Amino acid sequence: MGQEHILKSHDNELARLTDEIVRMGEIAIEQLREAMVALQRRDATSAESVIARDVDIDELERVVSEDVVQLALHGPMARDLREILAALRIASAIERVGDYAANVAKRSVALGFTPPPPQARGLGPLAEIAIEMLEQVLQAYRDRDADVAAAVRARDAELDALYTALFRELLTYMAEDPRMISSSIHLLFVAKNIERIGDHATNIAENIWYVVHGEAPRQERTKLDRTSGG
Amino acid sequence: MGQEHILKSHDNELARLTDEIVRMGEIAIEQLREAMVALQRRDATSAESVIARDVDIDELERVVSEDVVQLALHGPMARDLREILAALRIASAIERVGDYAANVAKRSVALGFTPPPPQARGLGPLAEIAIEMLEQVLQAYRDRDADVAAAVRARDAELDALYTALFRELLTYMAEDPRMISSSIHLLFVAKNIERIGDHATNIAENIWYVVHGEAPRQERTKLDRTSGG
Repeated sequence: MGQEHILKSHDNELARLTDEIVRMGEIAIEQLREAMVALQRRDATSAESVIARDVDIDELERVVSEDVVQLALHGPMARDLREILAALRIASAIERVGDYAANVAKRSVALGFTPPPPQARGLGPLAEIAIEMLEQVLQAYRDRDADVAAAVRARDAELDALYTALFRELLTYMAEDPRMISSSIHLLFVAKNIERIGDHATNIAENIWYVVHGEAPRQERTKLDRTSGG
Repeated sequence: MGQEHILKSHDNELARLTDEIVRMGEIAIEQLREAMVALQRRDATSAESVIARDVDIDELERVVSEDVVQLALHGPMARDLREILAALRIASAIERVGDYAANVAKRSVALGFTPPPPQARGLGPLAEIAIEMLEQVLQAYRDRDADVAAAVRARDAELDALYTALFRELLTYMAEDPRMISSSIHLLFVAKNIERIGDHATNIAENIWYVVHGEAPRQERTKLDRTSGG
């Protein structure tokens, strides 16, 4: 087997791996979408199926990570260290997005027997931004496009600002009507889960930047979640 | 350089790496301890220093991860795939423990100008269990001791049960006095952060099991956090 053949098969392997990771990401997005539908429509069956499917993402992450290390062990190339680390971190970030989606589904089950809380309205737009960030960042990973990745990273401030507004709105509801406290707390955690999903999309974006440019993005990311910082 | 020499230097490298990761873990524990002190004593200076030091753990995680992949690229051995994956995941789990500790510190700053909330009492014991789990699991990693790791994993149920009790107590406080809502929510997130730290200690324990036995622990872990599931 010539050197060229080895390099060729290595590139194919990397392309296959990228496809696997992107596929994982698509499943995570699907999970989040369905969890949000379950939450808005109080659909317990749909929520349960999201929860049950989370183990599939966990299993995929295990398989992908082992593939990545196999690739590392077999075909060292100049850019490998970055590709390997980025692939492991991106797979891990997607696995955590899946966890957050499953948690949203769990909370929709917990809310199941209470009337649909009016405070849930703001969650839809929040989830939409997170889903768009995920879709864009997966495309950026497929294309190894650092500029698209940087744009995703910039959008996280928008998500954080919306989260902060929603957080304050939920606090107001709770203060006005103590009977709303329990359901509002669940919605607060749902909002927090979505905000964390945005952080993971940002983390994926930073890993794409690292693959392409070999360093972390220079400019510090603006953190606009002000609910915990002051 | 003979084969034996390469293997020897590879073992040394792995031992050095283990030390680095354990050191990272010790810093994360220190951060959590100081964040809890800052929270209980309303000590803003101490909180700020925890927050500032979080970048050190992030930087360590980057260095360690690159070292791990360098090791993977240079010295393939039979057990490597598991050691490499476990080292990367353990380093990443520790980095997240550091994030949670920093978030506890941030919330203590946010609470800074309100009177010390009486609901904070239960948090000390909760953090103590999390810290003990972290200490034990780092020792288990140092010794590659799967049995100690399994014991840590079993303790997570204890932490979850305590978290659930605390969660309900905080809900009661909020319902009784709406002026407590804002501070209680911060404490709720602090409790959640500590519960998540327990999950990461468990995750580290599972990776130690995987290194030693080559598979995930058989028995499903009992999840006793009932605040989101029903």
